[in-house]
Amino acid sequence: MPCPIARSLERVGEWWSMLIMRDALFGLRRFEEFQTSLGIAPNMLARRLNALVDAGLLERRRYSVHPPRDEYLPTARGCDFRPVLIALLAFGNRHFAPEGKSVTIVDSQTGAEAAPIVVDRSTGRPIREPEFAWVSGPAAGERTRQRYGRRRQADEAPPQQETDRRISRRGKRK
Amino acid sequence: MPCPIARSLERVGEWWSMLIMRDALFGLRRFEEFQTSLGIAPNMLARRLNALVDAGLLERRRYSVHPPRDEYLPTARGCDFRPVLIALLAFGNRHFAPEGKSVTIVDSQTGAEAAPIVVDRSTGRPIREPEFAWVSGPAAGERTRQRYGRRRQADEAPPQQETDRRISRRGKRK
Repeated sequence: MPCPIARSLERVGEWWSMLIMRDALFGLRRFEEFQTSLGIAPNMLARRLNALVDAGLLERRRYSVHPPRDEYLPTARGCDFRPVLIALLAFGNRHFAPEGKSVTIVDSQTGAEAAPIVVDRSTGRPIREPEFAWVSGPAAGERTRQRYGRRRQADEAPPQQETDRRISRRGKRK
Repeated sequence: MPCPIARSLERVGEWWSMLIMRDALFGLRRFEEFQTSLGIAPNMLARRLNALVDAGLLERRRYSVHPPRDEYLPTARGCDFRPVLIALLAFGNRHFAPEGKSVTIVDSQTGAEAAPIVVDRSTGRPIREPEFAWVSGPAAGERTRQRYGRRRQADEAPPQQETDRRISRRGKRK
């Protein structure tokens, strides 16, 4: 799948993988630490850690030779996953914490609670519709271009360069 | 689990669920539309749609009585999931698109590509360490308080109110 969301989910889209990344970014390193935190079966944990190492989000480092023991550290790529976790935290706090928040993000200096939102780095404007739109990029295949062409056709006058495109089946339905 | 990330993942942490939300927020409505887009088995799709309706992210609406047919629309809660998808998109584009981007987010007016980052709404400051920290909130149980207490103990001088807390087993290891 060319979709960048799908590609992310291929690597870290499994529930346990995201919680392992949460713990790893929080400072947990060792197998037993993850196991205690998550209550996950050892074989499942081993599989997930291996997958995260293979995907380049965690790095395995041997900290004991006798007996052989590894710890797992977030790579730069793994650290880049943090915004996904912050967005999940904000979503959970807003919608699934009827008894109040159990974890929040605060300004380290003032202790003021932060309200995480997603903005465009250069302009600081919140990324939302209709100010921003998802469009096909330079590496998009025909299917992706059709999909994002359809959206633009529904919302706006079709841009000039759209006219020679085939209308997708889903476009007619909408 | 009290963790807001885990609670979000309980509702929408399954790979297919996230891709269904991606498509629903993009404008897909009908069973066959999701099926065509995702290439997912019908029974799996039905199960995931039901779960997203139960979790309040999608609303089921009957659009045909004979034959009975439903469509699925994102609720306000479902729309609030969009920042998670934007964060996954940015992560995928940065790390898993060696051939170039196939989907990007652009300014609707100018077409300029947006670089999504997570900031604090009121101050506009990027949410990252060490400027911001994850801390236990008012509804935290003992285990959550210990966990976030541990982190503060590792990074800073222990705050006054931490002194009477039991040191967690993981705290000693770190």
